[in-house]
Amino acid sequence: MKSNRIVVVGGLAAGPSAAAKAARVNPRAEVILLEASETVSYGICETPYVIGTLIASEASLVSYTPERLAAEKHIQVHTLHSVERINPSHHTVVVRDIRQATTRDIVYDKLILATGSRPRKLGLPGEDARNLFRVKFRDDILAILSFLEKESPKSAVIIGGGYVGLELAEALVNRGLDVTLLHQSRLPLAGLEESMRKHILEELTEHGVRFSTNTKVDGFIVSPSGRLRAVHSNKGTFEGDVFFSSIGVEPNLDLARSAKLRIGPAGAIRVDERQHTSADDIYAAGDCCEIRNSVIGKPMYLPLATYASRTGRVAGENAAGGKASFKGAIRAIAVKVFDLEVAQVGVSAEEALAAGLQPVVESVSSYTTIKLMPGSAKMTVLLIVDRSTKRVIGANIIGGAGSAARANTLSVAIQHRLTIDEVANLDLLYAPPFSPLWDPVLTAAMQSSKKISPR
Amino acid sequence: MKSNRIVVVGGLAAGPSAAAKAARVNPRAEVILLEASETVSYGICETPYVIGTLIASEASLVSYTPERLAAEKHIQVHTLHSVERINPSHHTVVVRDIRQATTRDIVYDKLILATGSRPRKLGLPGEDARNLFRVKFRDDILAILSFLEKESPKSAVIIGGGYVGLELAEALVNRGLDVTLLHQSRLPLAGLEESMRKHILEELTEHGVRFSTNTKVDGFIVSPSGRLRAVHSNKGTFEGDVFFSSIGVEPNLDLARSAKLRIGPAGAIRVDERQHTSADDIYAAGDCCEIRNSVIGKPMYLPLATYASRTGRVAGENAAGGKASFKGAIRAIAVKVFDLEVAQVGVSAEEALAAGLQPVVESVSSYTTIKLMPGSAKMTVLLIVDRSTKRVIGANIIGGAGSAARANTLSVAIQHRLTIDEVANLDLLYAPPFSPLWDPVLTAAMQSSKKISPR
Repeated sequence: MKSNRIVVVGGLAAGPSAAAKAARVNPRAEVILLEASETVSYGICETPYVIGTLIASEASLVSYTPERLAAEKHIQVHTLHSVERINPSHHTVVVRDIRQATTRDIVYDKLILATGSRPRKLGLPGEDARNLFRVKFRDDILAILSFLEKESPKSAVIIGGGYVGLELAEALVNRGLDVTLLHQSRLPLAGLEESMRKHILEELTEHGVRFSTNTKVDGFIVSPSGRLRAVHSNKGTFEGDVFFSSIGVEPNLDLARSAKLRIGPAGAIRVDERQHTSADDIYAAGDCCEIRNSVIGKPMYLPLATYASRTGRVAGENAAGGKASFKGAIRAIAVKVFDLEVAQVGVSAEEALAAGLQPVVESVSSYTTIKLMPGSAKMTVLLIVDRSTKRVIGANIIGGAGSAARANTLSVAIQHRLTIDEVANLDLLYAPPFSPLWDPVLTAAMQSSKKISPR
Repeated sequence: MKSNRIVVVGGLAAGPSAAAKAARVNPRAEVILLEASETVSYGICETPYVIGTLIASEASLVSYTPERLAAEKHIQVHTLHSVERINPSHHTVVVRDIRQATTRDIVYDKLILATGSRPRKLGLPGEDARNLFRVKFRDDILAILSFLEKESPKSAVIIGGGYVGLELAEALVNRGLDVTLLHQSRLPLAGLEESMRKHILEELTEHGVRFSTNTKVDGFIVSPSGRLRAVHSNKGTFEGDVFFSSIGVEPNLDLARSAKLRIGPAGAIRVDERQHTSADDIYAAGDCCEIRNSVIGKPMYLPLATYASRTGRVAGENAAGGKASFKGAIRAIAVKVFDLEVAQVGVSAEEALAAGLQPVVESVSSYTTIKLMPGSAKMTVLLIVDRSTKRVIGANIIGGAGSAARANTLSVAIQHRLTIDEVANLDLLYAPPFSPLWDPVLTAAMQSSKKISPR
């Protein structure tokens, strides 16, 4: 392989994966990682557990310091270096050294964009108040922890009841705060089926979270000192000592747009199976890209750490001259909501309908282990099956400890296109501490199979 | 469907499954279940947890009384009725009513044998001593519980370090007994790979179980009152207050032999995919049958509750005129050994070699969740891959809470013949409370893939 220069833009998740893989695949390549902040390789997914005090040390979320990343992975790491512009025809990027306040051009042979995502904003005055936080970058977390420690707020208002909002709610309840969660629709966690979402709402309420449904925030009430006092909405005014906005993220596309890269229908950088963009020698990976939903064959936007790592590796390998491909994702998501484990794999019934499939939804309640064992907990498995092909195309699982792990069984089934009868005939483990005699996945599959092919 | 009489012999696990299924498939059939003991539908797998006091009520293991089974499943249930002989040419069974001490012939249209298994014996004098127990039938359990309660033994000797022996060891330690485990080979749990078995031995030892390796029992030392005092072996004499023999089970074949049914190479009743035996209108299911190992395509003897239920249902459906098949098992076994979850799926390296495959074994140590989370525990995933096809053919998993569930992911992979690269590309869940960013199954698969196809 020829020696060449691979420039990676972005150091949070996909970037370091890509850079490390590229350096491994082609040890003669010069791999340069450019990151605008001071931090690389940060475990942002774990931060709710730091806020909730389950993980004691915030610093432990830094998996690699820039120095260690450079030394162990044979990468040139430049933090506080932001990329201002790409010039695809010259194969250069314009890089600003933030410390020195200088700008220079760097030539690349291959470029990998891992510019990630940023929090969505409501676009209302007051959104920058110093006690309104987001959970996205390390600086956010450091600010949150410092605020919580110094100001000992008593009450929190969270805007947005998606995964991050729910994790935050649990974290803040764990810290002893009064928590109000404002959500734009009727139930938390869009993407799961309604019956499951109801269950999750009950779990929140049981743990003291006030959940305000169908709530559209339309204003921030800020004190003269610049402190946010309350959130105004169609459902009234919600006061609090500290506020969080977790209304989702959007891809960072400024650089991609400057290089006129193709943006796909899901609103992120379009890439092929090799993570190659529409421009020569430019790859992209992670939260700035679309991902192909392999169940319905359509692009989706799915900013998750697992896919960032995977697509980063693929981009890195290909940029270094290798041949790797990312065949898409079925979407596998899990979250803990207090004592409830929640998992969603594959498509929702609504998505399936929209894709022209014929979803049949069936759910079965069972137990995580035989009911007689101490620690046995209720769990529900919901299966979504396409009536014409009988393929399992989606699943929701909620329940006590040991529930979410079951979703991986279904994840394999969905990814490898098993029919509902094949799932009903899976050879799963049984031992009293681990499962009922018929694993809940099997019970659900048998029930669903009967619904689809009644005797 | 024509109305006919289906006679099922054996009421523990496969029998009730078969009878209930037959009655459901053909409601006009007369379904008769004959059981020699007083108990049907008993959860024998759970009994170690009753002995260990985790499950308080032994009676709760009776999932159906004969009366309830009869009423709810529309079956004629006759307990204390043993079948003495089959006369295949006349389609009759000779049934002994144990209560009345009478014998009569019953005509069948279809016969289902679910005669189960019985404990293996050493065949040494003293084996029937009243303080030497087995864990196989409800009467055994009632006798054990009564003995433990009345005589408060201080020390126990267990002969046999298979799954049941290990579960018993934990149960007795939980009850405060001093436990010695005598095992015929060097390490517990034949069937797992050596590195895993060593780990299990450490776990036993750490919890105070004295494990005597390579120990062949050659005599019982019985007091004049008929009480077993000690076990004699090549490794010396082991004294105790109570003794257990858990050296495995063997199929009950007396009836099958009387009817000249074909016995297969694995030493149990030979059946086809429909659970049909070599004789017209006679089906068999559960522990008395062979099972086809679907990984290597050979019959094996695998007396487990899950397969008893499955084969019972298939036999019942077919006897009632339906069309069901059991395609074989990959073998999925799990056991808890103190704080260690242990799972084995698919074939062992040794079995693979014997079947002409080229097993490549690779194991990776990881954690059940991200290491920073409280409750995160070490776990090891060992994969066995066939070098020529790259198919995953076996796996061992051991580790803390949350380990065994991972084996189901691999079970699906093995059953559906995924290659190691397909396993490395599985779309598995990530959330900090549930998994590291790369699930240990994925880490192991990536490692194994590298070993098989080095770059």
